[in-house]
Amino acid sequence: MQNILIIGAGLSSSSLIQYLLERSDQYQWKITLGDLSLALAQQKIGTHPNGKAIRFNITDQQQRADEISKADIVISMLPARMHILVAKDCLYFQKHLLTPSYITPEMKDLHKEAKAKDLCFINELGVDPGIDHISAMKIISEIKNKGGIIHSFQSYCGGLIANESDTNPWHYKFTWNPRNVVLAGQGIAKYKENKRFKYLPYQHLFAHPKQILIRGKGKFEAYANRDSLKYQQLYGLNDISTLIRGTIRKAGYCQAWHILVQMGCTDDSYIMKDSHLLTNKEYISAFLPKQQDPKEYIQEQFHLDDHSPILHQLQWLGLFENSKMKVKNASPAMILQKILEEKWKMEADDRDLIVMQNLLEYEIKGEKRKLTSSLIYEGTDKQNTAMAYTVGTPLAIAAKLLACNQIQTRGVFIPIIAELYEPIYQELHELGIQFHEEDSKL
Amino acid sequence: MQNILIIGAGLSSSSLIQYLLERSDQYQWKITLGDLSLALAQQKIGTHPNGKAIRFNITDQQQRADEISKADIVISMLPARMHILVAKDCLYFQKHLLTPSYITPEMKDLHKEAKAKDLCFINELGVDPGIDHISAMKIISEIKNKGGIIHSFQSYCGGLIANESDTNPWHYKFTWNPRNVVLAGQGIAKYKENKRFKYLPYQHLFAHPKQILIRGKGKFEAYANRDSLKYQQLYGLNDISTLIRGTIRKAGYCQAWHILVQMGCTDDSYIMKDSHLLTNKEYISAFLPKQQDPKEYIQEQFHLDDHSPILHQLQWLGLFENSKMKVKNASPAMILQKILEEKWKMEADDRDLIVMQNLLEYEIKGEKRKLTSSLIYEGTDKQNTAMAYTVGTPLAIAAKLLACNQIQTRGVFIPIIAELYEPIYQELHELGIQFHEEDSKL
Repeated sequence: MQNILIIGAGLSSSSLIQYLLERSDQYQWKITLGDLSLALAQQKIGTHPNGKAIRFNITDQQQRADEISKADIVISMLPARMHILVAKDCLYFQKHLLTPSYITPEMKDLHKEAKAKDLCFINELGVDPGIDHISAMKIISEIKNKGGIIHSFQSYCGGLIANESDTNPWHYKFTWNPRNVVLAGQGIAKYKENKRFKYLPYQHLFAHPKQILIRGKGKFEAYANRDSLKYQQLYGLNDISTLIRGTIRKAGYCQAWHILVQMGCTDDSYIMKDSHLLTNKEYISAFLPKQQDPKEYIQEQFHLDDHSPILHQLQWLGLFENSKMKVKNASPAMILQKILEEKWKMEADDRDLIVMQNLLEYEIKGEKRKLTSSLIYEGTDKQNTAMAYTVGTPLAIAAKLLACNQIQTRGVFIPIIAELYEPIYQELHELGIQFHEEDSKL
Repeated sequence: MQNILIIGAGLSSSSLIQYLLERSDQYQWKITLGDLSLALAQQKIGTHPNGKAIRFNITDQQQRADEISKADIVISMLPARMHILVAKDCLYFQKHLLTPSYITPEMKDLHKEAKAKDLCFINELGVDPGIDHISAMKIISEIKNKGGIIHSFQSYCGGLIANESDTNPWHYKFTWNPRNVVLAGQGIAKYKENKRFKYLPYQHLFAHPKQILIRGKGKFEAYANRDSLKYQQLYGLNDISTLIRGTIRKAGYCQAWHILVQMGCTDDSYIMKDSHLLTNKEYISAFLPKQQDPKEYIQEQFHLDDHSPILHQLQWLGLFENSKMKVKNASPAMILQKILEEKWKMEADDRDLIVMQNLLEYEIKGEKRKLTSSLIYEGTDKQNTAMAYTVGTPLAIAAKLLACNQIQTRGVFIPIIAELYEPIYQELHELGIQFHEEDSKL
């Protein structure tokens, strides 16, 4: 009998819990689900005899110790910054830990100790990061094993909205954390293209998105993620000429978002005075260097005529209207988020869409070839999203592998090792998270 | 007999030392000048019987204590970040301190203790900050004393190059710290205009400079400084509708600088890989989102035709050439600085120029009026700059006032109190640093 503790019963936990409960008789698991809301945890566990719902407060040190000490494997579905609290207790009580989040430097620091104690602290087990690593490593290793040399690797992913639910001129709704969407891309995007290191500053990151074509789904666009270069070593892509990782949006999103970036709407570094008194129009006017109608200024500045789709996107947000946002002590980004949350809200029956594409160019036996591996996955409704399913499922599979003693690696790591990405890729496929591969002469 | 210790014998110390030595018999002062370079200190002191040059290492705690304990007044001409070392010793040995630099939070924290020990720690006694405060407070208080109500206050200052030495298409040379010029304006510019708070983000700070006219010197332009709003309280400008402080450049500078900002050339947040191997053209190309000739891209992106003066300014910097900068482990800003240092170098006989202008709109006895107060001051050559003279002279005058017991205020403060700005303004005028005032009906 093994005890699996899941902390956090939010959206992404649903498929994880369901997967584990369904297999709990077969593998003899006892699943404990803790959440600040006992009702939510109870709802997710239902009446399953192998499941137990508890009220769980992560900041309660005693409770954390009590519950973690009773578990064999802990899965943290908490906000990323809180994993470290769980990790330290897991280290103390010698328990395995799984999270869907990026490894932080603090987490990395636990590697030696976790390894010495024979523990697995596996991170980046969601969709992005997670399935991106798994799908990338699967095709990279296949090409390498065949003796191929990879010259170019590009990987793009986006959490979007399905075509039938795509009802606004941005072709976007919030299917995930709105704050992350508003602040996305700040800093510098580093990547490599045709043997040259590239550094795209935030102020023109969205101006010239890459065009992405996904068979059956049409045109998308993508902007580069912050640091693609670190994946050269992680993925074993030495001497690669092109290495880009990016975020996918539907066509037409990026150039309109670029205007908001240029205007200063996504700045989160200062509080606007009396922000709760500002109308949308006063908000956008506060960034203008001269006294002018903001719509006129933007048209002039960004060369947009009256029929420009970009202008339409901005107008549709109500940026030039006299409505008040009433957000107290808010940064420009916080006010923009409030505006967007009203406009980009998912309806109950809206279905989200996960799109991922890996593009490789490689050489084998003197022939230049191109491999495209694409995932399209749609959710069912606002509660059962593709995002939640694709985040929860790799975690669930990894938990099963760990419970069945099929993982030999120890320490703090991510799913770029064969004993993880091979079985997870295989089982994702069986569960309907399927990549479509096309391999052709270049 | 009073002992005055000056730490740092750089350019700006020359006029300060000269002023104090010249009056040292009359007031019975002994002047000690310390610098890492004894030769430089000796050269500045010459053979004056009341002067003494010493080799001084600010990081030598023992020497710092020895010299500061012997002084009555200490003037720190060190880089701004080092004043705090001096300040703490001044507090311990109960000595007065003068600096030309902005008050830091650390310095501010010493206020209570300095006051309790009956000490003056006077900061911001240079030109900007310094003469800007002094000239602003002089006219603000005059208008208030006459019963006027101030509606608008704008203050601009620039360290530029005299017309005869203006030999390049940017109309600019480095007359001061190049790094500060390259990084100027990063973050957000906050000000108030026609009762509205304004927030200009760095990415369009330089795109629409304010036009400044200075009688006899022609057209200039200015961009807003980081935080003008804090001067509302400092200058006692409650209920003011317009409050802007900014930096002056000669006409044509800002819009070309805007391109460098937009491209990402002024970013100091990361190191470019193999920066020492990059040619200028490769440097600028690294910021391009597509494979294109950088000149073509910039023309296209910023709508510059072949005859554009902005394009000419960029070309003149050699940005599209294949020369190598050879700067190791450099950020974009560090490489740009290297390029500019070669191009914007002052020649031995070049003369610099300080331009300052305060613009006030006020109401008195029902009449709306406008007051313009302008300073133009030119240097003699590369060694005797206007910058050095206007930084060193207010400090020297403040030291005299302090030595003569004419300052009653105690603690950490800046020259916005009448007992400082009135006599300093008056004596600056006598020494040739003269504001020209024009007051007219609006």
